[in-house]
Amino acid sequence: MKVCIVGCGAVGSIFAAHLARLDGVELHAFDVWEEHVRAINQAGLRLSGVASFTIRLHATTNPADVPRCDYGIVATKSIHTRVAIAQAARIFDAQSAVCSVQNGVGNEEILAEHVRTVIRGTTFPAGHVIAPGQVGYDIAGDTWIGPFEPSATPMEKVRELADMLTRAGLNTIALEDARGAQWTKLIFNAATNPVGALTGLHHAAVTYFPPTAELVEALIREGEAVARAHGITLHGDPRDLVQKGARAPGRHKASMLQDVLARRPTEVDFMNGAIVEWGAKAGVATPLNKALWALMKALEDSWSNP
Amino acid sequence: MKVCIVGCGAVGSIFAAHLARLDGVELHAFDVWEEHVRAINQAGLRLSGVASFTIRLHATTNPADVPRCDYGIVATKSIHTRVAIAQAARIFDAQSAVCSVQNGVGNEEILAEHVRTVIRGTTFPAGHVIAPGQVGYDIAGDTWIGPFEPSATPMEKVRELADMLTRAGLNTIALEDARGAQWTKLIFNAATNPVGALTGLHHAAVTYFPPTAELVEALIREGEAVARAHGITLHGDPRDLVQKGARAPGRHKASMLQDVLARRPTEVDFMNGAIVEWGAKAGVATPLNKALWALMKALEDSWSNP
Repeated sequence: MKVCIVGCGAVGSIFAAHLARLDGVELHAFDVWEEHVRAINQAGLRLSGVASFTIRLHATTNPADVPRCDYGIVATKSIHTRVAIAQAARIFDAQSAVCSVQNGVGNEEILAEHVRTVIRGTTFPAGHVIAPGQVGYDIAGDTWIGPFEPSATPMEKVRELADMLTRAGLNTIALEDARGAQWTKLIFNAATNPVGALTGLHHAAVTYFPPTAELVEALIREGEAVARAHGITLHGDPRDLVQKGARAPGRHKASMLQDVLARRPTEVDFMNGAIVEWGAKAGVATPLNKALWALMKALEDSWSNP
Repeated sequence: MKVCIVGCGAVGSIFAAHLARLDGVELHAFDVWEEHVRAINQAGLRLSGVASFTIRLHATTNPADVPRCDYGIVATKSIHTRVAIAQAARIFDAQSAVCSVQNGVGNEEILAEHVRTVIRGTTFPAGHVIAPGQVGYDIAGDTWIGPFEPSATPMEKVRELADMLTRAGLNTIALEDARGAQWTKLIFNAATNPVGALTGLHHAAVTYFPPTAELVEALIREGEAVARAHGITLHGDPRDLVQKGARAPGRHKASMLQDVLARRPTEVDFMNGAIVEWGAKAGVATPLNKALWALMKALEDSWSNP
């Protein structure tokens, strides 16, 4: 079984390292960061934290170096999905299935413009890049995957991938409808990520500081109202994800705060922006998500407009 | 006529410098910043920008050095009003009148706990401290003053102070009811200051960047609803203050952004916090002001909780 990780950052590396250990899997990783790819090829990919090990695998900045794969796992930042899959599409054919494990909503739609069979996915494991070839695995957790509805992905493909990931040590649940899991994670992300990114507070501090705890709750309620209006039944309570993240050891900085500290464009369009857009479609007001979206866009703007 | 400036930062210095030039005014300035006081006493107070001049005046860190004054002008940050007037109260007696030209609402109530006669004031001029003894005068504008209702301040006191300030070059309008002017400035400040402080955008950028322009408008509407519920007729449109500030030359950073860059506690409790509090009293929902208040409190918290 050949698998290609598209986007080998923190989350992509957690998937790559686990799958590369599995007998019967030939793992390839595509990423545009040259130093990272070089370090992985020279010394292996080193994971530390929740699980700590170093594993050899084939990484490349050039999709032409990757053979046709049975599965793709896309783990780029949402803002890079379009460019990444345009380059990586050649790795997949009509029998392949490509699964997003990215944040936010809207990624599967982009993947489906380039590949035939798409799997909707949501993952909880989180980490951060320590150095080229080295990734901190900060938070463990489940992954939920299901068919992307418009591509009529067969459930056996979903189950095969879920089984493979679970055997690799990343517990994955195959669902007939994975939208609820994705929206639970989306609502969790949208309610906490920009709060940390705007204030510099790590996730536990956002959760326990009373004024932001109240704001997080209000943001969650807006997201829940939007999901409800679209007939999406959440898979679990976003509040449980908030608490789970806060209990994780260490002081994990949410990915959006990591982006802000590195002055990289964030995924806010795919998080709060998506909630606002889906809210507008259903006539549900989302003033707080819109406010946080506006503040994040302004913060990004300030880097080029000091 | 003896006048004491209580709090000789950017705005206090603009008032001090102008009043000190006026024949018949003996001007004293009280501030706790020793280097600033020493520089003023040694070389005079130097203003530059909208008006540029250097003027000698008596500054001190010790209110016991100041004789009894006819007028006080309080220009500390709102968070320092209580400590400042407790120290400075001895400068004033039953015939004196003490005027706040501070941001936000709630300062006059604190002054009235320590002095007999209080004047409600709101001022538009803005600046920034360049160095001890040197203040940049960034934005010109009017000042509006009126009786603080509970202290039954006579209008002749209000008019005498307004005339003095106007003659000194700071156009000041005496109003029977100055609450409308104060709320116009409050709503303007609460709608723009935290947006700049959270994003790093200077005032004009906050005004012209479409996502924040829309957020500013939504914040203004919440503030207007609260004022209306309390029977306060605004004196001018907060939107005009937004535009006026944006047209000012240079890239004036709003005072709250200056505070954030210096990691000083901000005035958000007296701005968005006050709108939330007054909204709650009148049963008016203010979710956006509350969100921005929470984010600012969290940002302040992050400095001691990294």
